[in-house]
Amino acid sequence: MCGICGCEHEHGHPHEHRHASARSVQLETDLLAKNDRLASRNRTWFGARSIRAFNVMGAPGAGKTTLLEKTIERLQEQRSIGVIEGDQASDRDAMRIRATGCPVVQINTGAGCHLDAEMVFEGLGLLSPEHGSLLFIENVGNLVCPAMFDLGEGGRVLVASVTEGEDKPLKYPHMFRACDSLVVTKTDLLPHLSFDLDAFLGAAREVNPKLRSFTVSLTNGDGLGDWCEFVLRSNA
Amino acid sequence: MCGICGCEHEHGHPHEHRHASARSVQLETDLLAKNDRLASRNRTWFGARSIRAFNVMGAPGAGKTTLLEKTIERLQEQRSIGVIEGDQASDRDAMRIRATGCPVVQINTGAGCHLDAEMVFEGLGLLSPEHGSLLFIENVGNLVCPAMFDLGEGGRVLVASVTEGEDKPLKYPHMFRACDSLVVTKTDLLPHLSFDLDAFLGAAREVNPKLRSFTVSLTNGDGLGDWCEFVLRSNA
Repeated sequence: MCGICGCEHEHGHPHEHRHASARSVQLETDLLAKNDRLASRNRTWFGARSIRAFNVMGAPGAGKTTLLEKTIERLQEQRSIGVIEGDQASDRDAMRIRATGCPVVQINTGAGCHLDAEMVFEGLGLLSPEHGSLLFIENVGNLVCPAMFDLGEGGRVLVASVTEGEDKPLKYPHMFRACDSLVVTKTDLLPHLSFDLDAFLGAAREVNPKLRSFTVSLTNGDGLGDWCEFVLRSNA
Repeated sequence: MCGICGCEHEHGHPHEHRHASARSVQLETDLLAKNDRLASRNRTWFGARSIRAFNVMGAPGAGKTTLLEKTIERLQEQRSIGVIEGDQASDRDAMRIRATGCPVVQINTGAGCHLDAEMVFEGLGLLSPEHGSLLFIENVGNLVCPAMFDLGEGGRVLVASVTEGEDKPLKYPHMFRACDSLVVTKTDLLPHLSFDLDAFLGAAREVNPKLRSFTVSLTNGDGLGDWCEFVLRSNA
């Protein structure tokens, strides 16, 4: 366990992260255990209301907010949808979601690098999502830390763009392992890049064979139907 | 101070990160103070050898490794260069740097979200950079946590691509404030995007008026000369 970020610590490698002392390991174990308890409370809360919650993660600029905008546009007549937006600062993402007509709560983490279960629970109190609704929780843009924090969600979605390079699953394996679905965005840019989509998807499967993947262009709508169908089915 | 990630904690906002307890604040203060001491040792080490060290940060896929490859190609006949590569996992970036003929050490952080001064000091022992050389330290791809950890570097470079969206300085202000230079990459993709470069640079200046910015295409080489001249001048 890393004494700085609370993440699981891998020992044994001569150059690996070695902040951890006995005291910090205990502290961080306590903090993660507390988060897990609160995540469990959130999960019960969602279950009691038949709410399907998605924790949407990915690097800054991967297209998380745009994916939510387009998904809301397609699904909001069929299903009640709510959004919790997490960012270090600003309410820009909440303003974008609000423009779709969807209820949204913005959480600012300050210098914090991820959302946690307690923040989400507070957000739920403000949002009051409807029984049977879909809830999207957009995490802070970060391909590292949010992977370690259970929010009580029913689905974990990793958004990654084709401009990020095909080696990302091998370089950030914790996030790719933590998620159950992968949405690859910006496929309209493929003709202008040397990005090898098959190599990327192969690397993602190598790290997490159970990862379900979707490829979309949020500019021209390609692939968005499959993704939206998956979202609806997951909450049937 | 955040009890999870060790980052500076902003109080006062009703929905902000609120992990911090008195115990965790003290622990994280200790950890950051220890890092600052070790960073100071690195700074002395660099000074004694007239080495100019750059801490290169940015989101995953921003183009950090490619910027280093192209910079090395242009400058390695004029100046001795060394690289320390930081990634959660894999030695792919080190392999890419090695292919340029430049000495490189790979540090894997495991689940860790940033490099710290101790890791860099260990890397220096393995790399043994020459007197008067340039050193590039490529941090873990993360627009959040690395901003808080001084490595003893002489320059902090933020690499951001035009595919990430122009709102990033406002959403990740800590990183934009922590850096002294900004390299905006992938400008060759601008014709295919709705990215407003002036708005992005304006937002960056709003957050950090002292930020010196460069715009480059690592595909066609546009703007790379100005950046390389800046690097050389900074170590004249």
